[in-house]
This record gives sequence, structure tokens and C-alpha cells, in this order.
Amino acid sequence: MSVYLVGAGPGDPGLITAKGLDLVRTCEALVYDVLVAPELVDEAPDDALLIPRDGIGQDELNRLLVELGRQGLEVVRLKGGDPFVFGRGGEEALALAEAEVPFEVVPGVSAMSAVPASAGIPITHRGVAAQVTLVSGHSAKGDELDYAHLARTPGTLIVFMGVAHLARIAGGLVGTGKDPSTPAAVVSRGTHDDGESVSGELHEIAELARGLESPALLVVGEVVSVGRSLAALASAAARA
Amino acid sequence: MSVYLVGAGPGDPGLITAKGLDLVRTCEALVYDVLVAPELVDEAPDDALLIPRDGIGQDELNRLLVELGRQGLEVVRLKGGDPFVFGRGGEEALALAEAEVPFEVVPGVSAMSAVPASAGIPITHRGVAAQVTLVSGHSAKGDELDYAHLARTPGTLIVFMGVAHLARIAGGLVGTGKDPSTPAAVVSRGTHDDGESVSGELHEIAELARGLESPALLVVGEVVSVGRSLAALASAAARA
Repeated sequence: MSVYLVGAGPGDPGLITAKGLDLVRTCEALVYDVLVAPELVDEAPDDALLIPRDGIGQDELNRLLVELGRQGLEVVRLKGGDPFVFGRGGEEALALAEAEVPFEVVPGVSAMSAVPASAGIPITHRGVAAQVTLVSGHSAKGDELDYAHLARTPGTLIVFMGVAHLARIAGGLVGTGKDPSTPAAVVSRGTHDDGESVSGELHEIAELARGLESPALLVVGEVVSVGRSLAALASAAARA
Repeated sequence: MSVYLVGAGPGDPGLITAKGLDLVRTCEALVYDVLVAPELVDEAPDDALLIPRDGIGQDELNRLLVELGRQGLEVVRLKGGDPFVFGRGGEEALALAEAEVPFEVVPGVSAMSAVPASAGIPITHRGVAAQVTLVSGHSAKGDELDYAHLARTPGTLIVFMGVAHLARIAGGLVGTGKDPSTPAAVVSRGTHDDGESVSGELHEIAELARGLESPALLVVGEVVSVGRSLAALASAAARA
């Protein structure tokens, strides 16, 4: 018996790992996040126990995983993205380790790069960005981000779960010295068929992104221009 | 015809995406990095053209991908990790777009989180680290990292490809004010069966990691302590 903390990837069901998919296909219990693609939940065996995580708090979830593991089941805890990148997998791992339930982490494709990639944006690019900073737009404690420090940080800034606070985040960066004309993009439901993105300058990005759905990711930095060059070339090729 | 820029993941062949594996299994030409698991190269069809990237410079490689695409082949360019995270996938995408060769990026699991995870370290953890900074230990232009800024950056610092420069990097951070007792780990060949890791304090990490093989990744921050707690609990459970 074991509990596998498996990353489902950023949305597109094809982006789960081969190992993660094998585990889903052979599990006895599947505890899954609501953002996980339904196609992946459908891959579980017909007689597997299916438990949507919806409405279950983190402490209760940790207890549930321990309980399922102690019952001797092969348990897959299927999480969006990667369990260890803003995924609270560390807390689940600690709860399992404390309860002496064997577990294994199976990493997933993080939204970090896959979601910008779905909008044509590489998060690093030679001569453009050799550093990437990931932050969460809504912190556990409700702390504000250190905008003054982030404004002086080179390279690409990626903000997870920031769509509800876009105006505050963009304003915080510009207000502490980030160039208002820095290229920025918001990618909504990236890697899904109905994904959408907008790009422009940092000072206007909140306005441009109005109406875009969650989950969405904010990308700030010159790599957004690389994405625009790629898109322009592709559209020129399509017209030729 | 199309060229797929596919991330092979961090090492363990099971960590390629389901979509990436399908593409490898049906491709007509496979251009692969030397760090890609041989098991994945073996998944290509028997009659596929197999081209190791070894010894081919980036410009020549870009031309090769364009040429293969123009021949009308289904081409998979299989890259370690994720194509758009220190993977130079953006340059390959631009070359293909400029040549009007259709391409698609298929993201992969980045070493960023999967390699620390293989040593039990979550790169974010509630109340411990809500920010992650990724840098490359050897920059394209040979520029030094901005140690003074990095030393004041909260959260987790991940240094790719820095194993040859560990002493310089750790010294640069400590010399500009980073607490020398900050927990640090080096994970070598993470996710591979022969992976190894060491952890200690930042000031001693270069000494501790002496002899570890490339590719290796440096993790600096309190999350390394979370990894140690997990390891201690797991080892106590194994003794119980």
C-alpha cells in the first residue's frame, strides 16, 4: 500500500506524465482536485473509489489520505500542476510521513512554463531572460508581495493565482519603480482548448485582462515580446 | 508535417508526458539531447531517423530542424526537462517560425521541482516559502549573478547547471549578506536511479557536494529543512 501524490499537469490531460497516468489507471482510490481534467478521472478503474476534493479542507484532506493509506489501498492523490509548486504537496507528504504511511511524489508539468508556452511565451530566452521568479498572487497569510524588491528583480516574473488581484499587483510593481511599459501577458485556462490570453504593457494589463477566467497566470517581462514575435511570424506564415 | 519541441522531463523516463511519449512513438525523425533517457529514444519507431544532438551547435541544430520539417517529416525534438525553461526552445521555435515550418511546443516536467522532489524537498511550502527564484549557474554571456539582490530575495533559490561553480555561487551569496547557515542542498542526477543528494548549510555546501556528478541542481532556503523533516520521519517509520 502506498499513497502517490501525483501531478496532473496544467490542464490538457495529455500533459500528465506516463508514470502518473499508469498510477491513475491502476489505483484503488483516487482523490482529485476539481481543476483536474475529467478525462483523467475517467482513466481510473471502474471499481476505484473516486473522491473529489471539492469542499474538503486541507487538514481533513490530510486525515483522509492517511486513513485511505492505512486501509491498505493504492491511493492516488491527483493534484493540478505539480504537487510541490504551490500545490501544498509538502503538507500532505508530512502528514503521511508522520502517520508512517508510505508515500511517493510523482512530479507533474507545472503551469509555470506550460501555461505561458500555450500562449507562445518561453519563460527564459537567451539574451532576454536568464532568471525566473514565481510568486503566488494570494499568499497563505494574506501578506502583500514585496513589490519594491520584485520591481528590481531581473528576468521573468510569473504570478500564480493572481487574476483577482491583477490591478493591485500591476499597480504595486509600477508604483515601486517597475517600468510601466514592461511587456505583460495574462493566460487564462492555458493548455485547455478554450484557453485565452492577452498581452500588452504592465500598466494596462489588468484592464486588458478584464473578463478572463480563472485559473490564470500573469507573466511580466521581455519574454512576452519574444512570444509576440513568434505569433507574428506564425501569422505571416499562415497568410503567405 | 510538423516539428514538435518536446520536453523529456528531468531524467526518469516515466516522467515524460503521455502526449510527448505518443509523439516519440509515432515520429519519423527524432533529434534528442544526450541527457535524454535512452529508454525514451528506444520508444521511437524502428524506421525513424535517430539523430543525437551531441556536438551539434545551436545554429546548426536550428537549421537541421528546419530542414527535417521542410522534408515533410513528423519530427520530434526531444529535450531534457522543459523546452522553455533554460532549454533554448524559444530559439528553436523562432527559427522554425521564421522558416514557416509548423511547430508545436509540448511542455515537460522541469528539473526545477522534480529534482528537489526526488530528494524529498518541496520548493514551496506554506509558511516557509511562497516564492521561488530560478537562475542558471552559467549564463550565456558569462555574466555574474546579481548576488546582492539574490541574497535579499525571500523564498527558495534554485540554481540550474551550477555544480561547477558551487563555491563561487555560495560565496557570492554569503559575501553579499545571505545567512551562511541558510539550509542548502545539492541534488545530483535527481529522479535517476543513481541520484544522490547532500544537504547542510550554505557556507559548507560546496565542500559537502564535492564529487557529485552533473547534472546537479542547487537548492537554497528553508524548504531544505522541510525535506530533512520528511526524511527523518520516514527513517523513524522504517525503524519502527
